[in-house]
Amino acid sequence: MEVDVQFLPVGPPSEFLSNRAVVVIDVLRATSVIIHAISRGAMEIIPVITVDEAFRLAKTFPAGTTLLGGERGSRKIPGFDFGNSPGEYVAEKVGGKRLILTTTNGTRAFHAVSSAREILVGSFLNVGAAARRCFEMGKDLLLFPSGDEGNFSLEDAVCGGMVIDHLIRQARDSIHLTDAASAAYLLYQQFKQNLIEAFHVSHHGKDLIAKGLEEDLFYCAQVDITDVVPVFKDGAIRID
Amino acid sequence: MEVDVQFLPVGPPSEFLSNRAVVVIDVLRATSVIIHAISRGAMEIIPVITVDEAFRLAKTFPAGTTLLGGERGSRKIPGFDFGNSPGEYVAEKVGGKRLILTTTNGTRAFHAVSSAREILVGSFLNVGAAARRCFEMGKDLLLFPSGDEGNFSLEDAVCGGMVIDHLIRQARDSIHLTDAASAAYLLYQQFKQNLIEAFHVSHHGKDLIAKGLEEDLFYCAQVDITDVVPVFKDGAIRID
Repeated sequence: MEVDVQFLPVGPPSEFLSNRAVVVIDVLRATSVIIHAISRGAMEIIPVITVDEAFRLAKTFPAGTTLLGGERGSRKIPGFDFGNSPGEYVAEKVGGKRLILTTTNGTRAFHAVSSAREILVGSFLNVGAAARRCFEMGKDLLLFPSGDEGNFSLEDAVCGGMVIDHLIRQARDSIHLTDAASAAYLLYQQFKQNLIEAFHVSHHGKDLIAKGLEEDLFYCAQVDITDVVPVFKDGAIRID
Repeated sequence: MEVDVQFLPVGPPSEFLSNRAVVVIDVLRATSVIIHAISRGAMEIIPVITVDEAFRLAKTFPAGTTLLGGERGSRKIPGFDFGNSPGEYVAEKVGGKRLILTTTNGTRAFHAVSSAREILVGSFLNVGAAARRCFEMGKDLLLFPSGDEGNFSLEDAVCGGMVIDHLIRQARDSIHLTDAASAAYLLYQQFKQNLIEAFHVSHHGKDLIAKGLEEDLFYCAQVDITDVVPVFKDGAIRID
């Protein structure tokens, strides 16, 4: 089982992806929001690239079934039901509903890897369950940090490193790490005693703190609070 | 002064590069070879992408002035004067000569960043001098690991982290690290007591050992054995 990490959020060629499982990671905050919302009973989440696309798509579904979530510049989008803070997505609001989500980094990532064999959603919230799922599938694996506006993002790499830490414990000698996977694993070792510290080093983490969204950091740094591992398939994210 | 590291060897847009200094790093082995050969008296080194281009270009210079160096699959190219082992480039052979060099990763990197304001050549061999030169220039800096056949390469990132370690000591509060720069700095911290260990983790390092080229690793892991910081300008690498 080869484990690789894509350090810049550029989708690899389809022929590379077609035999691989991918875990999309956007700790701050899209995949944390997705995992949280699905664990609170959201029926499905459709990640879209643009705000226009979100509004247009929402109109195609029966009234009352669909809600809009996401951000631009970390802020809630005018006319949307939710921003990009996991805590907003409470069961009373999202239970049984379809969500259309558009964010700066995370929702793009799903489209960048859409030709992969399997696409899972990972964050610290479900890291143990996501790693178990990868191990059970036994496929070569690409961890796909969503990055920060096209750049490398530290917290996503650290989360990827935590997935790898789990896989090493489970797979032992049968796991082969690329250089990027080794680096992510080593970066995780630096922050494993204090994940919040990675957010304080990262550009995106500091930006969220400056915008008064530090509470989201504490939420997103929680480890293994759910066993839900949502899957992106045919354009939507659901429980498999 | 912003310091960034490009974790995949893809040239950023010209508008990003035009105001920046870039340090190209290919520890194993192209930039180690270049620094070694220049420090042994080579007049200039012309990095080219293809073997055909190397042969064609060599014919345009007067007989006896120009030598060919480089590798494919880590092996010396048939008809070339040198492979890609720094130790081959002794003063008796390269002194006063022009070298045309073509390698899998390093020579491509120079062309990928050719629109940058200043392009320096870095490796462990000249890391302190390269960092001082960057600090004196005072420009925003992009460290450019040459990667491993298009992938992230651990040893180049670690060398980038060592440049950053020097810059932090010199520049203190006036230095701003991107997430990639912070990650490279942290990766360097993991290997600073034993740089050879990074080669033993890296795919490229392991491949060179398997091909009987372990001696090159010891050569390339030497720190600050020269103050030469070659510059790539107008298609050729020289002492500025």
